[in-house]
Amino acid sequence: MNNFEFKNPTKIIFGKDTIEKIATEIPENAKVLVLYGGGSIKKNGVYNQVKAALSQFETVEFGGIPANPEYAVLMEALKVIKDENITYLLAVGGGSVIDGTKFLSSAALFEGETPWDILTKNIRTEKGMPFGTVLTLPATGSEMNSGAVITRAETQEKLAMGGPGLFPEFSVLDPKVIASIPERQLANGITDAFTHVLEQYMTYPIGASLQDRFAESILQTLIEVAPKVLKDPTDYTATADFMWSCTMALNGLIQKGVPTDWAVHAIGHELTALFGIDHARTLAVIAPSHYKFNFEAKKEKLAQYGERVWNITEGSLDEKAHAAIERTEAFFNELGIDTKLSDYTKDYNGTAEKIAQRFTDRGWVALGEHQTLSPDKVEKIVKMAY
Amino acid sequence: MNNFEFKNPTKIIFGKDTIEKIATEIPENAKVLVLYGGGSIKKNGVYNQVKAALSQFETVEFGGIPANPEYAVLMEALKVIKDENITYLLAVGGGSVIDGTKFLSSAALFEGETPWDILTKNIRTEKGMPFGTVLTLPATGSEMNSGAVITRAETQEKLAMGGPGLFPEFSVLDPKVIASIPERQLANGITDAFTHVLEQYMTYPIGASLQDRFAESILQTLIEVAPKVLKDPTDYTATADFMWSCTMALNGLIQKGVPTDWAVHAIGHELTALFGIDHARTLAVIAPSHYKFNFEAKKEKLAQYGERVWNITEGSLDEKAHAAIERTEAFFNELGIDTKLSDYTKDYNGTAEKIAQRFTDRGWVALGEHQTLSPDKVEKIVKMAY
Repeated sequence: MNNFEFKNPTKIIFGKDTIEKIATEIPENAKVLVLYGGGSIKKNGVYNQVKAALSQFETVEFGGIPANPEYAVLMEALKVIKDENITYLLAVGGGSVIDGTKFLSSAALFEGETPWDILTKNIRTEKGMPFGTVLTLPATGSEMNSGAVITRAETQEKLAMGGPGLFPEFSVLDPKVIASIPERQLANGITDAFTHVLEQYMTYPIGASLQDRFAESILQTLIEVAPKVLKDPTDYTATADFMWSCTMALNGLIQKGVPTDWAVHAIGHELTALFGIDHARTLAVIAPSHYKFNFEAKKEKLAQYGERVWNITEGSLDEKAHAAIERTEAFFNELGIDTKLSDYTKDYNGTAEKIAQRFTDRGWVALGEHQTLSPDKVEKIVKMAY
Repeated sequence: MNNFEFKNPTKIIFGKDTIEKIATEIPENAKVLVLYGGGSIKKNGVYNQVKAALSQFETVEFGGIPANPEYAVLMEALKVIKDENITYLLAVGGGSVIDGTKFLSSAALFEGETPWDILTKNIRTEKGMPFGTVLTLPATGSEMNSGAVITRAETQEKLAMGGPGLFPEFSVLDPKVIASIPERQLANGITDAFTHVLEQYMTYPIGASLQDRFAESILQTLIEVAPKVLKDPTDYTATADFMWSCTMALNGLIQKGVPTDWAVHAIGHELTALFGIDHARTLAVIAPSHYKFNFEAKKEKLAQYGERVWNITEGSLDEKAHAAIERTEAFFNELGIDTKLSDYTKDYNGTAEKIAQRFTDRGWVALGEHQTLSPDKVEKIVKMAY
């Protein structure tokens, strides 16, 4: 096991009818900016629950944060924070709204020239404006971690930020919100969480038995509940397992002490930036090709995953590892998620070269747990995913 | 899944040669009381590492905290805290030293009549004197939770305390400290952590798939590493897995959203109070009888545990559940841990009645996940363990 440090101070409030509890988590004298997305919270009752809980607070609202939270929109919200002397942020939404709120938490107290620097100069946020979240879409894990990904349409860029100041103070996870989520987004959420685990697990054996088993536990649970959640999103038991699994998939725990990859995300982000493909779907496009291309480096873990998660007991180590990749792709397909770039766009020619060039331009020399995936290898992986 | 709240703000610093990092975790102007036990830290090098790390701090020492931290000894340490105007506590030891430090953290700021009230009146500690820990014996999980158990020899009592103010600010976990731990204590640590998981898992199915799998992951890892750790406590990979498993076994995570039992601990504490038997060994004495006595209520989970953790695939549900109890008792025996009270004392007659009476006197009407274990049933369980 590698040396590690772990601290995650976010308070999780989990369960049915818990949204009202935000009132006791936010400081009494706070002036709260309530941030949300396209307005689905006004249809599913979450908005009303939040409003009722905040009736004793001075609040301002900012809706319309898009999927892949857009820098230009967030800069409008930042203006509201300054103009209205906001002291507390409340994200009500999925990963995009929460990530956007993290950017605002950081930008609100940022003293540099432009908040864009936070993203391009990798400025770690030690202290942000305090914020909480009400999660409406399980997927990204942003509700219990300190990272965010922000998009800038103008430059077709999607960049990451983070720091210990960006943990939510609290996050409310009420699985009942899942009942009104469209099937497409549920499938995305399952795929996103599943791939988060793979990024922290599908590397090489390092003897961290507990982290391996925790990762496998999340994968097994997602596989078990996926058909139930898609069939009946009012199945409370299944949706609760799903929601908690998504949070545990990316709250820092399973990545501690082990090598991590994240190449699938790095490449996938480019597909979202270039084509607007749903984040989760870009992961399902890239992951199988990535594992095939890096087969020799990852085959021990692929075989272990095949055995423990998919009960693949027959064949040599190589055969089990290959079967595990196939089973993973089939799982995404069973969720209704296509796994080839050509399923999403006819305009895919030249994409591999373009992404490789963008990585080169940005100075990203090499990706992956061994830092050996140079832009020319990324190009090959993307081509395999056409 | 039941509703739950989860927050664990302790910072874990894990890995080889990490003790020096305490210097950057303690506030610069702190006056530190370093607490330890019988002095083993002076033989294994930990004391020198701590002293070197704290060379820039004003420190006072208090050694001699015994296993099952004794109230009278802690009251002496409390006097030192007051007389010396201590502002920060550093526990260097195992669960007993850390639990004792938690009591002192609470008692140092306690404004009631006598600190004994914290234990007898179930006073929850919202804020204590800040403290960190350097763990020297993996077992209790106290390094990452907010609970403690304190013993008072005078009245043969062992009582619990806790509260959100009692999380360590940081805990340093260097698996290299395990190299010098005697085999007896290593076996105790494995047994203690294993039973902690059972207390939070061996109840009844509630459909919390992820918590079940996490619990099983810890059990599987402990089973895997136990023979390696006992054979060669310098095996870094195995000791690191062991150390992290003990912490995860009782840091709150696996008990969230599920029913918990804790009857084994409640009864076991009495055996320590009455006979001075090592805490872990009392658990190994009580657990098998407890599961046999409550077989009908627990058999679904017993069978699931048998299948997933011990690969017991043959037989009916009842047969698997019985086999799982037998396998658990055999596991304790393989660690060199006896599982009958008569293995520890010839003076066991009347123990069951005495413990039942103590529970009755203390007003403990019923134990267990269903709160149905009345003192007369406890009496039967203890008799089965003779």
